[in-house]
Amino acid sequence: MGKLYIGLVHYPVKNKRGDIVTSAVTNLDIHDIARIAKTYDVAGFYIIQPMPSQKRLVEWIIAHWTEGYGGEYNPMRAAAFDIIRLVESINDAMDEIEGETGRIPRVVGTWAGHSGAVIGYDTMGDLIVSDSGPTLILFGTGFGLADEVQELCTHILEPIRGIGDYNHLSVRAAAAIILDRLARITHTD
Amino acid sequence: MGKLYIGLVHYPVKNKRGDIVTSAVTNLDIHDIARIAKTYDVAGFYIIQPMPSQKRLVEWIIAHWTEGYGGEYNPMRAAAFDIIRLVESINDAMDEIEGETGRIPRVVGTWAGHSGAVIGYDTMGDLIVSDSGPTLILFGTGFGLADEVQELCTHILEPIRGIGDYNHLSVRAAAAIILDRLARITHTD
Repeated sequence: MGKLYIGLVHYPVKNKRGDIVTSAVTNLDIHDIARIAKTYDVAGFYIIQPMPSQKRLVEWIIAHWTEGYGGEYNPMRAAAFDIIRLVESINDAMDEIEGETGRIPRVVGTWAGHSGAVIGYDTMGDLIVSDSGPTLILFGTGFGLADEVQELCTHILEPIRGIGDYNHLSVRAAAAIILDRLARITHTD
Repeated sequence: MGKLYIGLVHYPVKNKRGDIVTSAVTNLDIHDIARIAKTYDVAGFYIIQPMPSQKRLVEWIIAHWTEGYGGEYNPMRAAAFDIIRLVESINDAMDEIEGETGRIPRVVGTWAGHSGAVIGYDTMGDLIVSDSGPTLILFGTGFGLADEVQELCTHILEPIRGIGDYNHLSVRAAAAIILDRLARITHTD
């Protein structure tokens, strides 16, 4: 089985008007997604954020919860934060994964409204199980990953469909559902 | 098929020490879980909170996003907030559901660490499909539902297990995963 990594992308993402922007870090994204990633045994959770002031904020949050008072108060949170890695770009995350595993990762983009060719959860899960190469799943903050991220992607994951037409999940909820769906394929008893 | 309701319980819940407390409302719980509930076509999302000052806060948040500036800025958020109902107790939620459907709801508790008898997702989903009575799934804030809530429950749902031992999901992530798992049983194509 190949290692699974996830990346929370703050650049390049879309804002409400569709412009390409760098989004600010949301504290609760880090907490929720670190706990989700740890629950589903993700090898590394990349926070992808190029802005220096925002990087310092992330470093401060991580230090508080792993080394500072937060880690003493809540050791379970420290355990989840241990898998967080801060990088400036999607390419930096890809390079680090290649250095760690010796293989260029397959890069899986997630777009809530994507209407082109996609890979389903069963097929994606089977690929993770059958191929020892690493996988990096990218989640967009703001109003989603910029379209140009598709150039880096080897696959685009099937959008989450609920019941009916409404489909406006937070990135936190989407990450939870996607990792749970994949784990049910990769870790069947 | 029976209607599905969910309740986010702020009393009675446990704090870090295991004491029974009333927890404060977390703004992002309301936003994330309303969007999740709307995505999975939940009939009503009960915020169960007895404290008057906290109720006023919830009323203010709902009004902002359905009638105020928030609703104009983000109509999709207004659509999600339309299914929110504010009540003071689990019993009040049960009474309202009984008034609406003519049936006392089955009440399903969720505890991350429950080790007793539980109902699995497949069985729970089949029950929702085959029986026209309503279902109310309860999620605990703070450090989880108080044990006394078991007296109201007709079922306790199988805890979410990820991969490995770590199991400390936020209530937002747990609600997303549970509603997705049930929908895959109740709404197979």
